[in-house]
Amino acid sequence: MTQTISLVEVGPRDGLQNEKQTIDVATKVALIERLADAGMKSVEGGAFVSPKWVPQMAASDEVMQKIKRAPGVSYPVLTPNRQGYEGARAAKADTVAVFGAASESFSQKNINCSIEESFERFKPIIEAAKADGVRVRGYVSCVLGCPYEGAISPSQVLPVARTLYDLGCYEISLGDTIGAGTPKETKALIKLLAQELPISALAGHFHDTYGQALSNIWAAIDEGVTTFDCSVSGLGGCPYAKGASGNVASEDVVYSLERSGLKTGVNLDKLIETSLWISEQLGRKPGSKVTLARSA
Amino acid sequence: MTQTISLVEVGPRDGLQNEKQTIDVATKVALIERLADAGMKSVEGGAFVSPKWVPQMAASDEVMQKIKRAPGVSYPVLTPNRQGYEGARAAKADTVAVFGAASESFSQKNINCSIEESFERFKPIIEAAKADGVRVRGYVSCVLGCPYEGAISPSQVLPVARTLYDLGCYEISLGDTIGAGTPKETKALIKLLAQELPISALAGHFHDTYGQALSNIWAAIDEGVTTFDCSVSGLGGCPYAKGASGNVASEDVVYSLERSGLKTGVNLDKLIETSLWISEQLGRKPGSKVTLARSA
Repeated sequence: MTQTISLVEVGPRDGLQNEKQTIDVATKVALIERLADAGMKSVEGGAFVSPKWVPQMAASDEVMQKIKRAPGVSYPVLTPNRQGYEGARAAKADTVAVFGAASESFSQKNINCSIEESFERFKPIIEAAKADGVRVRGYVSCVLGCPYEGAISPSQVLPVARTLYDLGCYEISLGDTIGAGTPKETKALIKLLAQELPISALAGHFHDTYGQALSNIWAAIDEGVTTFDCSVSGLGGCPYAKGASGNVASEDVVYSLERSGLKTGVNLDKLIETSLWISEQLGRKPGSKVTLARSA
Repeated sequence: MTQTISLVEVGPRDGLQNEKQTIDVATKVALIERLADAGMKSVEGGAFVSPKWVPQMAASDEVMQKIKRAPGVSYPVLTPNRQGYEGARAAKADTVAVFGAASESFSQKNINCSIEESFERFKPIIEAAKADGVRVRGYVSCVLGCPYEGAISPSQVLPVARTLYDLGCYEISLGDTIGAGTPKETKALIKLLAQELPISALAGHFHDTYGQALSNIWAAIDEGVTTFDCSVSGLGGCPYAKGASGNVASEDVVYSLERSGLKTGVNLDKLIETSLWISEQLGRKPGSKVTLARSA
């Protein structure tokens, strides 16, 4: 039986949010539509956060209103609080995401509250979402290391992931925010989490800061994980190491999986075209080795 | 028991051979000595080939004469023919390497003879080396694809690897010359070869053209391979896709293995220093994500 891997394309949100340039609504809409057309079944559409803090995500409501939605494709948006959730609902979001952390320091510096307090903030979002029939995805950042605290053990990740799951998140995206984790660390993390959470509820979100992302994806696949976040052209640098890579490039993931006989449902040629196009819009070189090799 | 991985640093030969600039003897000598000082137990020293064909490798004899040799470190050099072998011996090489291919077209275009004829060319080298107590390493290129023929099956690789081993090569370095292979393909290749060759005689030589190299190394480790070629700063672009990556960067390999608890004997800090230094000499950006992240 051919194994199927679900990809969550995070370029239009997690990617663009961490790029220097802010791009216009029409370009964002085109990017999201192109990614869905390439076969991505989940494409992050934006973030309902204050444009004061995250100017790159301003006008996410306009973006969500304007995209032509493809059947069978979901367009999750980030909602840090109840106000963000209401905005997301008004913009007809079918899936929202909350963003927690496995590191106390990162939680404080990034979302300005403790891990425990973040759960209290997520509860009303998740409850409202349940009532509205909206799915909630839970992000846990710093699962393999923290820019402030350094090492993070799997036993620190487990209670955060479990709480988000118990609160009602259908999927927990495990983020190696600083991209420092390696395959054996990834396996150890998944092994522990799988003792208390269904493996189908876990997703891997790996950054390529240290060149480890694809190896970590394969390590997680070995442990049974079948959902991964990725970003076209590797959009999104690493804010914790300037000039370094951020999200793993979707093209490199699709190439590796498809050529290994796993099914992603994504058309690599269309994805590469989209990568070249958005890289040109941003005036940057594609952050995918596959795209660079294919277009050389 | 801690697993030990042997690394073969190919930057000064395979790397520099595929860089645009030719660097001087003193810089090559310093590079080789720095890599040995960082803990590499095998550092390719040069190639005894015609400087007409490979100007980057001119003066390999002078380089080999000038390096201060560290105890327990070997300095293999490439010897395409008997004449090259004599030059290597005069320069006190302790290990030489012959370079074959799993692809008939690549063999013809690269070394100007058929695969079968290449064995005849290697025989006198290997016989002379046996008499001299010199070890011979065998390279097989195009093991996961050929720039001219496309797909190469493991069953095409097997007879070439086996013949080189039977002729007397102590180790067969399996080269993914175009860097197109993926983890499942790597596993399938190793599984087949291991049926007829001792796994300890197999080494992996992966290029990162499509971003797959480190994942392929981990796939090969899963199959029992314990020796890998790598190149400081990812020296050596891919001659078959301009602007694309070539050899996997040594720093990214050492980081991944050591942080996963495997032992390489290499000091990562010294390796990164060497990477930054040689990249500066060549006027290029380091080709290692670890080095970029650490120096950002």
